[in-house]
Amino acid sequence: MGTENLPRTIDLSEDGSVAHIVDQTRLPQELIIKEITTWEAMVDAIKRLEVRGAPALGVAGAQALALYAHNQDESADAETFLAKLDRVGAQVATARPTAVNLSWGVQQALDAADDAACMEAPLPVVKRAIIDAAQRLRDEDEASCRAIGKAGAALLPEGARILTHCNAGSLACAFYGTALGVVYAAFEEGKVAHVYADETRPVCQGARLTAWELGQAGVPTTLICDNMAASIMAAGKIDAVVVGADRICANGDTANKIGTYGLAVLAHHHNIPFYVAAPCSTIDWKLAQGSLIPIEERDANEVTDCIPEGVEIFNPAFDVTPAELITAIVTEKGAVAPTNLRSLKL
Amino acid sequence: MGTENLPRTIDLSEDGSVAHIVDQTRLPQELIIKEITTWEAMVDAIKRLEVRGAPALGVAGAQALALYAHNQDESADAETFLAKLDRVGAQVATARPTAVNLSWGVQQALDAADDAACMEAPLPVVKRAIIDAAQRLRDEDEASCRAIGKAGAALLPEGARILTHCNAGSLACAFYGTALGVVYAAFEEGKVAHVYADETRPVCQGARLTAWELGQAGVPTTLICDNMAASIMAAGKIDAVVVGADRICANGDTANKIGTYGLAVLAHHHNIPFYVAAPCSTIDWKLAQGSLIPIEERDANEVTDCIPEGVEIFNPAFDVTPAELITAIVTEKGAVAPTNLRSLKL
Repeated sequence: MGTENLPRTIDLSEDGSVAHIVDQTRLPQELIIKEITTWEAMVDAIKRLEVRGAPALGVAGAQALALYAHNQDESADAETFLAKLDRVGAQVATARPTAVNLSWGVQQALDAADDAACMEAPLPVVKRAIIDAAQRLRDEDEASCRAIGKAGAALLPEGARILTHCNAGSLACAFYGTALGVVYAAFEEGKVAHVYADETRPVCQGARLTAWELGQAGVPTTLICDNMAASIMAAGKIDAVVVGADRICANGDTANKIGTYGLAVLAHHHNIPFYVAAPCSTIDWKLAQGSLIPIEERDANEVTDCIPEGVEIFNPAFDVTPAELITAIVTEKGAVAPTNLRSLKL
Repeated sequence: MGTENLPRTIDLSEDGSVAHIVDQTRLPQELIIKEITTWEAMVDAIKRLEVRGAPALGVAGAQALALYAHNQDESADAETFLAKLDRVGAQVATARPTAVNLSWGVQQALDAADDAACMEAPLPVVKRAIIDAAQRLRDEDEASCRAIGKAGAALLPEGARILTHCNAGSLACAFYGTALGVVYAAFEEGKVAHVYADETRPVCQGARLTAWELGQAGVPTTLICDNMAASIMAAGKIDAVVVGADRICANGDTANKIGTYGLAVLAHHHNIPFYVAAPCSTIDWKLAQGSLIPIEERDANEVTDCIPEGVEIFNPAFDVTPAELITAIVTEKGAVAPTNLRSLKL
């Protein structure tokens, strides 16, 4: 068992004619590899979350431009090609707002085209440069993930029990994963005792994707509801929290899936280290702080359903709130501080 | 609009022959009032969560014994009746483990029977005493809720924006509610600007019950996923957290729906007052501290589905974690503290 059992999340044929993506809206029920042959179809796939995860979105952005380049008639003039390339790039880059990697991936492909065009290369050479850039990003993404994994694994203790949120796994990248890259690398070193995966409402990426891919790779995993994380921290069951990132500001403020911030507060309260695992392409040096990050609000209908299946589930029905966190207990005899609870006995 | 639009959650006919409960597993799709005529059927209803909520469970426990009493042949001898009453009481009291109110309600009915029996009352009088006790509990529960509401409302500012978790509402009590009793009382005083209701995975009592009853009563309400609470606190949208309780220990440690503890940590971090609203019957004076409270673990299949509908939903896809809560950012260039992030630029 191991990551060799995982599919490639996003790939591009050598000639740039077709991209293959794991359709993540169909997991865990079925593993569908979808063929994408136009840049417009890639934008649709991004908007529908068929391909998601910040690093994978970077690769998808570049691949969208590669598909555009492949499909352009070679007899077109270079200027028209490049002008339209810019417009296509702008549309691809804004398909989703929060992850900076998407526009970064698009920019990498545009830069490759510009470099070639500056040298007055003929159109076929410019097109090839775009396709090459997309393929390079895919390869670099996997290499980054493996490096992140190694660096992160070194931070974990032997027998580590790790909590993660959403899916910053192989399915969020070209291959291997960022937060789960850390898990996989530590697992390969024999250091992982257990992973707790938040289901990650409302889209349940944790229940549908993280639990699935950890299961494929043979990593012992328990799925919890998001609101159970505090309890298992208090119970001493978590040695580290490891999450991914959609955008990291210059000061280190980090945007990630809703719920990540709460986990960080909880980890802080329980003296549990909180690690963000992400490639440098996730860092937005132009953004000074987190309050400047645009936050995507998605459709209310996403909250209406979630069907995880076939994974181990921890399901306590209650938890315990220590008195020191309660401002007052309000009874029909009035409100009292917990320290003064005995006054209710009189 | 107001609480007059809410159904009575649990009621008992004057002669003790039939209890009526709102079947809470059917809400919000349909409002079904279910007739219950045997103590065994009441135990089933408790186990299936058709009746739930700590104060309502207290009333249900007493009503189960009232149904037993009503159904016993009056020609039976008192000793046999009382011996069986004790056995029935033990089974009712343990139908669910965490809420202390259930066994408290049972004990109230047993005490009433004992008091009558001590005075060598004839069996019909003993039976009547049990039924009277069950009806008294129902009436006292509503009175308690209204007193809790008044005491809690006094703690809230004008224009209060309140976060609640699970359902400590009218549906959790005979009528009116504990945490939502505070909301209703404050709403009647014109002090409530908005309520945020956690959906409360896995059974979604917040989405199914709290959002429904607040909607019936005309209180402006937004449903959020549990993991969004930290974000709305950080955004300054919450003035107070108000929750119910299933058991309060002598030192004030409080057991409540899974997720409550995490909310308390988050409220503490954001300097938001955190109020527990519950009747004194919820206090277990025999239990010194929270670690002694038995925590119910329920079936994994509860985590597999949740379908809230027809309520306003807040659905941001991401949140922002401030740098100071991140121990390290792990990239392919290594792990760095957020304060040292610029070293990655070299």
